[in-house]
Amino acid sequence: MTPAIGVFDSGFGGLTVLRALVERLPGARYSFLGDTARLPYGSKSRRTIARYAAQSARFLVNEQGAEFLVIACNTASALALDAIQEAVTVPVLGVIEPGAEAARAASANGDVLVIATDATVQSHAYAAACLTRGMRVLEKACPLLVPLVEEGWTGHPVTDEVIRIYLEELRAEAAAAGMRADTLVLGCTHYPLLREMIEQAVRPGVKVIDSAESTAQAAARLFPGRSHPAPGDPPETACPTEIRCFATDSVEKFERLGSRFLGRPVGAVELIDLGG
Amino acid sequence: MTPAIGVFDSGFGGLTVLRALVERLPGARYSFLGDTARLPYGSKSRRTIARYAAQSARFLVNEQGAEFLVIACNTASALALDAIQEAVTVPVLGVIEPGAEAARAASANGDVLVIATDATVQSHAYAAACLTRGMRVLEKACPLLVPLVEEGWTGHPVTDEVIRIYLEELRAEAAAAGMRADTLVLGCTHYPLLREMIEQAVRPGVKVIDSAESTAQAAARLFPGRSHPAPGDPPETACPTEIRCFATDSVEKFERLGSRFLGRPVGAVELIDLGG
Repeated sequence: MTPAIGVFDSGFGGLTVLRALVERLPGARYSFLGDTARLPYGSKSRRTIARYAAQSARFLVNEQGAEFLVIACNTASALALDAIQEAVTVPVLGVIEPGAEAARAASANGDVLVIATDATVQSHAYAAACLTRGMRVLEKACPLLVPLVEEGWTGHPVTDEVIRIYLEELRAEAAAAGMRADTLVLGCTHYPLLREMIEQAVRPGVKVIDSAESTAQAAARLFPGRSHPAPGDPPETACPTEIRCFATDSVEKFERLGSRFLGRPVGAVELIDLGG
Repeated sequence: MTPAIGVFDSGFGGLTVLRALVERLPGARYSFLGDTARLPYGSKSRRTIARYAAQSARFLVNEQGAEFLVIACNTASALALDAIQEAVTVPVLGVIEPGAEAARAASANGDVLVIATDATVQSHAYAAACLTRGMRVLEKACPLLVPLVEEGWTGHPVTDEVIRIYLEELRAEAAAAGMRADTLVLGCTHYPLLREMIEQAVRPGVKVIDSAESTAQAAARLFPGRSHPAPGDPPETACPTEIRCFATDSVEKFERLGSRFLGRPVGAVELIDLGG
């Protein structure tokens, strides 16, 4: 039986989570939905986000037959996981808890830094998830990183300088708070495309946690009956991975930028209408 | 009689247009509406934008008593000016035509460059307005400039470098097209905050047209009975300028960033609900 996995994001950044899932769980049938008509979720109220996310989850489960849902959207994971779980009967996994769990496993001293979008930081979802695990945490919004990635300036000197400035500010804030963080969580689905640059910009010994990768690891653990190779292992060939991408608007931008996030062609993105 | 002027934008960038209006037409009663719950307009369909813009225009005219509307939003000016004019009975002025008209007046050789957001460039509204005036035009999307302004990095070396890169690319494209442009139009309401940096980055002799300022000049011409001092003239004191700001969401961000755009405190921003 080929498992059917639904992956949901407000935009297409969550394709980095899908990419990590495909490496961990090849041979599954994936449906990815980007609710691009209604992004950004970050500036909307909890009630509105819950309504949008529940509609999207129902599409993936009821119309695409997903047996398992991954919410590859930090805002929806932070504010609407309960509403999504109520809307569908399949297991639902968000990106926040796996990221915090990976930070706990990685950190020796329990002092953790998180970089994310403004909306994710304002939700303090990572902070809450880290605090309940007994860690000290400092979050920083890095609003320029998403537009730099979308402009294609990964590896660009300007992006290098922006990362350097943000991390320097974060280190100063951490020092002022008496923290000596040994772990940095990438709390945004766009940031895996900057992972190498960020790893070069952190102090030696600081571990960088990619929440997309952590989420894929957590998903693989939820399929104990299936093999889940590590990245780099030869892919299973018996059952080819199937990927269908859906979006509610801006299909052209999704197709143009998505392949860089997914690490392979996204193919034709299907436009769907979830209503107002 | 104090004239009542309504100013509409999808966000708060249009406060730069309001700022220019207040300089040209002091002593008026201004209502500014930012439809922040439903931004960005740029990724939405023409029909949806027309519906949102018409609702917003009706609020300013029917509920705030505006006798004149300025559409300080490039996307709405490009795609929904007709729909707004149908929705209300007062005169409506957009930002595209005044910008193009100012470019025609400024350019000696008729070769004009436009920088704007991706959505404005894709609408080709400035290109169309320039072409009908007999000019040659080349447009370039500069997606990093809005987030740099919103991050407060006006005057920052990173912003200087980004502007330099964009203008260099634009010059190379213009040269390849056989153009020798002598005029650059700032086709985004955020860009007036970068005007000095952009003026220093263009070649000597290239005139920079600020479409916010051009729109205010056009509005002042539509009030011929009123004095309209140039910026720097002493303000009229008989009738103080009144400004009320409304937003459909994200009031906190509006209040936090708006003052830099308006050049004076925006005060308390009133939250309104225009429906879905």
